[in-house]
Amino acid sequence: MPALPEAYQKLRARGRELALLGATGGLLGWDQETLLPPKSHGFRAEQSAQIAGIAHRLATAPEVGSWLSACEAAQPPADSPEAACLARWRHDYNRATKIPTDLVEENERASGLARSVWVEARKRSDFASFAPHLEKLLSLARRMADLWGHSGQPYDALLEGYEPGWKTKEVAALFEKLQPRLVTISEKAFTIPAHPSRKNLSGHYPRHDQEKFLQTLLPKIGFDTAAGRLDTSTHPFCSGLGPYDTRMTTRYDETDFMVSLYGVLHETGHGLYDQGLPEAELGTPLGQAASLGIHESQSRLWENRVGRSHSFWKAWWPDFARTFPDLTGHNWEHCWRAANAVERSFIRVEADEVTYDLHILLRFQLETLLISGDLKVRDLPAAWNELFQKLLGLKVPDDSKGCLQDIHWSLGGFGYFPTYTLGNLTGSQLWQAAHRDLPDFEAFLVCRDYRPLLAWLRQKIHAHGRRYLAGDLIQRATGKPLDPEAHLSILEQKVKDLSG
Amino acid sequence: MPALPEAYQKLRARGRELALLGATGGLLGWDQETLLPPKSHGFRAEQSAQIAGIAHRLATAPEVGSWLSACEAAQPPADSPEAACLARWRHDYNRATKIPTDLVEENERASGLARSVWVEARKRSDFASFAPHLEKLLSLARRMADLWGHSGQPYDALLEGYEPGWKTKEVAALFEKLQPRLVTISEKAFTIPAHPSRKNLSGHYPRHDQEKFLQTLLPKIGFDTAAGRLDTSTHPFCSGLGPYDTRMTTRYDETDFMVSLYGVLHETGHGLYDQGLPEAELGTPLGQAASLGIHESQSRLWENRVGRSHSFWKAWWPDFARTFPDLTGHNWEHCWRAANAVERSFIRVEADEVTYDLHILLRFQLETLLISGDLKVRDLPAAWNELFQKLLGLKVPDDSKGCLQDIHWSLGGFGYFPTYTLGNLTGSQLWQAAHRDLPDFEAFLVCRDYRPLLAWLRQKIHAHGRRYLAGDLIQRATGKPLDPEAHLSILEQKVKDLSG
Repeated sequence: MPALPEAYQKLRARGRELALLGATGGLLGWDQETLLPPKSHGFRAEQSAQIAGIAHRLATAPEVGSWLSACEAAQPPADSPEAACLARWRHDYNRATKIPTDLVEENERASGLARSVWVEARKRSDFASFAPHLEKLLSLARRMADLWGHSGQPYDALLEGYEPGWKTKEVAALFEKLQPRLVTISEKAFTIPAHPSRKNLSGHYPRHDQEKFLQTLLPKIGFDTAAGRLDTSTHPFCSGLGPYDTRMTTRYDETDFMVSLYGVLHETGHGLYDQGLPEAELGTPLGQAASLGIHESQSRLWENRVGRSHSFWKAWWPDFARTFPDLTGHNWEHCWRAANAVERSFIRVEADEVTYDLHILLRFQLETLLISGDLKVRDLPAAWNELFQKLLGLKVPDDSKGCLQDIHWSLGGFGYFPTYTLGNLTGSQLWQAAHRDLPDFEAFLVCRDYRPLLAWLRQKIHAHGRRYLAGDLIQRATGKPLDPEAHLSILEQKVKDLSG
Repeated sequence: MPALPEAYQKLRARGRELALLGATGGLLGWDQETLLPPKSHGFRAEQSAQIAGIAHRLATAPEVGSWLSACEAAQPPADSPEAACLARWRHDYNRATKIPTDLVEENERASGLARSVWVEARKRSDFASFAPHLEKLLSLARRMADLWGHSGQPYDALLEGYEPGWKTKEVAALFEKLQPRLVTISEKAFTIPAHPSRKNLSGHYPRHDQEKFLQTLLPKIGFDTAAGRLDTSTHPFCSGLGPYDTRMTTRYDETDFMVSLYGVLHETGHGLYDQGLPEAELGTPLGQAASLGIHESQSRLWENRVGRSHSFWKAWWPDFARTFPDLTGHNWEHCWRAANAVERSFIRVEADEVTYDLHILLRFQLETLLISGDLKVRDLPAAWNELFQKLLGLKVPDDSKGCLQDIHWSLGGFGYFPTYTLGNLTGSQLWQAAHRDLPDFEAFLVCRDYRPLLAWLRQKIHAHGRRYLAGDLIQRATGKPLDPEAHLSILEQKVKDLSG
């Protein structure tokens, strides 16, 4: 391979500068959600905007374009890591430079305003007050999509921002395969007689005991607690604030310890991915996560495949029983059943694993129609409610439990939702592949030894960073393209087990 | 007054950018001391250096010099706020631009290295390993002092960085007046028969109870808890991270509740000052603290004048008694005596109010000699121990309890120490003036109504930001120049009360 020009080192150095700024912006955001004094939110918004502005100028500076061209002209071999980095850098540079700064700022202002209107609108279930803001954000999203470029389907250009490499019609085809089977599985689950519910475990589970339990669980799963933290916030999240600074949050419900348990297992999946990205590549795409869908596959794998399994509950039951006196009279199987209960519900973030993707399919269908203009904003609530009834068999009582429940659209985040379901399907497909690749897979899990599984994920997913597009990464890790089959067969088996 | 040119608005805007960056850098530092995962310190140092570098480039950019010259040419009236802002901006700009970037970086590297060597040296009381680093930092400090400029006394140029307007010989003259009286007062205090000590109150004071008490105390004193926080760190500090984000830290000792009590009263003094700076002037010198000495005067006033008074202990005694069962059998006077105990001790940060300034006088004398070259680094431990014996009557057992105890020199912070004593003297002089200005001063304090005192400080000190040099500010607030008399007479009276 011909030597890469010096410009390549300049791209790496610029990438490192951007990673540092990204981590600093990340800390501003993390602190805002966890600790910031209430009166300081306005000032914090200014700080965040300043760091974002500095980063944007550095990322889109003309010299970056020159460095890229110089490196591309040197034509590194197509399968080299350098070629992958150049492709990702080029992708990001082109996207960032295609949008004029005033449009970025207009979008920031519009979504800032929309977000605060949405907060109030959701409280009062008042769609009418939010509608003009949604209209505005949709028109801005269409303008940006046109600038990014697409072949007739603007949603493609938006999706590309969250899940590079995927086209709208591919997602739609995948989801069409998924939908009827998911409906069948969930309807079967609803009819399980004396269906288990988390309410069966109602009791008092002091927050302090939950925290103690989680602090035991985290290192056992493989999370490096000297390179991260667990804190509290209203909406749980995970922030990678540097190679040795992965911060997760959770919330606690003293009547239901599974809220923090599954919240933390989910965020730990994200956190293990962040901790597994190669530190030496900080600032290059090889040190970044592959996509939102791949990130979500990690969280869902640890939350649902590991954490909701027979082996998890068998293995951890003595610890649970010792930690929570109010579990007296129960056994591991009660807990396993409660953790896997399938129930019709209105709110996506509270949905069980089986019905969860139905909530996503609904959002994907509606947002593609909103972007194409085939669905008018004023018709959104009726369309939502009709599709909800069809998919989940419930009549939506008001818009706060319907089309106003999520923050994403109020931030202009059109194209984000499908990554959740892509993550779910990917998580199950990876799980199946790990099962195939690793000898004594179940035996290790029953012994609470998660090292082989984590090592496998490190090698197959984490170590590659963003070298491969999500689809290629899945193909390399599992030997086949992403397919709903693994996930559906796992869910079918689970419902069968629950019925037994 | 002739209209100021448009450049004045540009200076304001640049100042605001710098204030935002300063707050972001401040958050990086605050988080480092309170929450940062242990493995992430190296990365955090890179983040902090990046933000400092961006700020330094913005502050020293040639256009700032042009804006300043354009505004100065317009000659705003000498007593206008604008003239004061221009003078401060010019001062800062000239200082920052006189040091070449490579010297700034060399100093950063040298102090970074020295700090880590110092940590180990202090642990092992090994002055020899630290000596070459101290040598290096002193030579860098002299080089910088020469670049900043001085008339024969390089320490002047260093002092100017912490306490603008003060000259070494003025500080020396003040301290010479102070020293014999302080020695006399402390020696008298040491001979009080059956001298009260905090050990008399030994008991178990659960951290949770201390926290609860402090959360009651803070708003009562006037700290806006919706615009700040109280957290935990090894070394207590206060960071102003924005107009509505003042963060204080403390540490807890379950055998001695006065550790957190006086730590928090001290930091609250700093915090009230930060919260009292005019928000509309954020980014101009009018929104900044006047000097380190003035800042310290606020912390010392609340810690020592308010918190160690008869009225404080009388007024808060019922709350203390209710909060801490282990105070049973004691009364407010026991607590007041224990809080004011005067004892010989080696460590500055643990010293009582009477002996504290002797620790500072010693450091000031030695560091001026080190900078002038009249004291060699190798002779520092002997010089320290000799002077310590003279001032405090104790033989220093080893250098970790002697010249290795403080972090300041390991960071190259020569010229910082005198600001502590200037703060102590100023705090007492302000206290006396407030007493004179405010009707029923004591009656309000006994009723725990601190609003008149805080309002007085807001009006006399906080509201002016950095408009006046510290000396002028004190003159305006108290009607006379800074003088040790107020402080000494207060201490003399206190020792008399303790003897009674």
